[in-house]
Amino acid sequence: MPIITLTTDFGEKDHFAGAVKGAIYSELPDVRIVDISHSISPFHITEAAYIIQNAYRSFPKDTIHLIGIDSELNPENKHIAVYLDGHYFICANNGIISMLASEIKPEKIVEINIHDRIETNFPVLDVFVKVACHIARGGTLDVIGKSIAEIKEIRGLQPVVNSENNQIVGNVIYIDNYGNVVSNITKSFFEEVGKGRKFTIQARRATFESIFTNYSDAINFDVPADKREEDGKKLALWNSSKYLELAIYKSNPSTVGSASTLFGLEYWDTISINFN
Amino acid sequence: MPIITLTTDFGEKDHFAGAVKGAIYSELPDVRIVDISHSISPFHITEAAYIIQNAYRSFPKDTIHLIGIDSELNPENKHIAVYLDGHYFICANNGIISMLASEIKPEKIVEINIHDRIETNFPVLDVFVKVACHIARGGTLDVIGKSIAEIKEIRGLQPVVNSENNQIVGNVIYIDNYGNVVSNITKSFFEEVGKGRKFTIQARRATFESIFTNYSDAINFDVPADKREEDGKKLALWNSSKYLELAIYKSNPSTVGSASTLFGLEYWDTISINFN
Amino acid sequence: MPIITLTTDFGEKDHFAGAVKGAIYSELPDVRIVDISHSISPFHITEAAYIIQNAYRSFPKDTIHLIGIDSELNPENKHIAVYLDGHYFICANNGIISMLASEIKPEKIVEINIHDRIETNFPVLDVFVKVACHIARGGTLDVIGKSIAEIKEIRGLQPVVNSENNQIVGNVIYIDNYGNVVSNITKSFFEEVGKGRKFTIQARRATFESIFTNYSDAINFDVPADKREEDGKKLALWNSSKYLELAIYKSNPSTVGSASTLFGLEYWDTISINFN
Repeated sequence: MPIITLTTDFGEKDHFAGAVKGAIYSELPDVRIVDISHSISPFHITEAAYIIQNAYRSFPKDTIHLIGIDSELNPENKHIAVYLDGHYFICANNGIISMLASEIKPEKIVEINIHDRIETNFPVLDVFVKVACHIARGGTLDVIGKSIAEIKEIRGLQPVVNSENNQIVGNVIYIDNYGNVVSNITKSFFEEVGKGRKFTIQARRATFESIFTNYSDAINFDVPADKREEDGKKLALWNSSKYLELAIYKSNPSTVGSASTLFGLEYWDTISINFN
Repeated sequence: MPIITLTTDFGEKDHFAGAVKGAIYSELPDVRIVDISHSISPFHITEAAYIIQNAYRSFPKDTIHLIGIDSELNPENKHIAVYLDGHYFICANNGIISMLASEIKPEKIVEINIHDRIETNFPVLDVFVKVACHIARGGTLDVIGKSIAEIKEIRGLQPVVNSENNQIVGNVIYIDNYGNVVSNITKSFFEEVGKGRKFTIQARRATFESIFTNYSDAINFDVPADKREEDGKKLALWNSSKYLELAIYKSNPSTVGSASTLFGLEYWDTISINFN
Repeated sequence: MPIITLTTDFGEKDHFAGAVKGAIYSELPDVRIVDISHSISPFHITEAAYIIQNAYRSFPKDTIHLIGIDSELNPENKHIAVYLDGHYFICANNGIISMLASEIKPEKIVEINIHDRIETNFPVLDVFVKVACHIARGGTLDVIGKSIAEIKEIRGLQPVVNSENNQIVGNVIYIDNYGNVVSNITKSFFEEVGKGRKFTIQARRATFESIFTNYSDAINFDVPADKREEDGKKLALWNSSKYLELAIYKSNPSTVGSASTLFGLEYWDTISINFN
């Protein structure tokens, strides 16, 4: 029996996630449900895209990922089920899959068409659960929707290079639990453009001239611990998802502060890399 | 093996919920535990009642719902186990079941009496877990308590109608993750009183003259997206639990604001409907 | 198949916890994963120690506890796996186990040495999961590390007694979801030092002359409910983990206030007990 994961903006308090789990177990008592996140900012599609992109790969093939963000059915927001990279995704066609699909072409996309039998303003419970259980039982996507060729794209998710090929301009796409700032600049894109040249990263007033592999690389462990200035030490590194991240060593947003607050960086702010 | 659900005010951080799960699995390795919510406001009985009411129905029959809110045993707060609508509820007799029981009569109520063997200030761990596991193993309620006829009621949870039968006065009973405001006025009660008459909903300075079925009903999709004023658009609708909800279309409490903040509505504030 | 628990500072929003669960289920489809907490304050080792100490005992023997706090490998922060009190703990050697080990001697400690095969800045995913699955399959600690005799200790976690033996000085080590303040003074330590003498507890301006067993012990139920002054009533009690806790009866940090805010107590603040 495959796994069904949940990624939503329902929050930790409301009954929504609990109700969805109850409905799934009512249909499939032996399925396994895993919460990825219920704390996506309300209607924040790029946050959800970043989270699902970095979580789904760890799951076994044929896992079913149910994404409940901005999912009310309306003329501009259809429901889709997608088979991509060996995983199923059930969500609204609101751009959330475009971050994943920019790297890997979906094998199959269907627009869900079981709605004539269902009227609801809670489609995750009333539509997505039915689709997920259908897939978990081994059903095909063609039974619950009709094939479509394209999914809706979110523009601006990719960094750009200037015509002289000496500058990458990207954006902040996520701020994590430690207040560290994640850009949309990947290690592979950086290496392709930079080709080993020296560089300076600029993000508001903060600059960086190297990109580390580990947070601890910022610290010189040859200096005795009581003589080191670690707190608040800034660094750039490739995070575990291979995105450029601007961080504060051991940042705690409520005490020493975080990269987001100390550098003054928010969602969509610009981060640029200039090559020499 | 049935499901045991947890609804508590333990929060997401403390060890309480983890300890309770460990204790249940120690007794019943094969049971399934589902978190409904651990983020109820501390000691907030009506929040808990609203959440459990809207979550339990999705679960299979004979699910056991453990509710850990204001559950310390004292002369005014006894422990009960209730069988109602095909589900078991284990909680303090503090009114939490009265919202459910106002619609559906409990089949069986027992006052738990296994305490002479247990001294504790963490009764969810030390008492409710034992009762839940007893029920999950197929044990009867009579073994762990003595039958009682009545449960404690919370007054004021029901909306009232004036003597001219042209006004319903209800209250805010829940504010959800999106900041939307839920009243205690149900669709069936509204239809019974209103009998199709025109009406005006009043909540502080905000007024509404129609009640939608979907959030998207507030939007005119014939107008091109870039010419629509969607952000902050207010609406009244029947939420997925069929309560009257006052909402902001795609509200995000930390950016566009929410119904709660924009309308200035808090718990227990009055919402009235005047029929013409 | 044993249980694997997770205690981390990943927060509720990021993909980290979801990714870890996916990786575990990919290796061991039938294992059971239980979240203890993902809301530890970032890098807060004593919070994590308090939580894991109070949660692990409820789980069955041979449960595997994975602790993801300050876990990046560096010259001063090695990875260890510990067998203690019939449970396995996988974490960084950063002092987190010293609170548990102050009471119970570990039977086995190994420093994990599988890193030559792994380069990562997300060791919980890439190292701890492998170790946990190895143990869950019945593997021995010797296969994944080399035995060491000592774990790193956090100093100052234990209360002290003055030379006249008439004063205990402890500290605040945790503030719970209700804002109640937990000290590092245990009931057994108090009884050993106090030997039944009268005492006064002092914490900033608040004083207490008795320590209750239940929160409700602070209330006189012989007085009718509407004539009692319960709200904001302060008390000292032995909490369910047998630590001295300073509490407000039915405190709600966002309404009536909490012990932490009302007494002005924060982490590491001093709490003293003077015996007469």
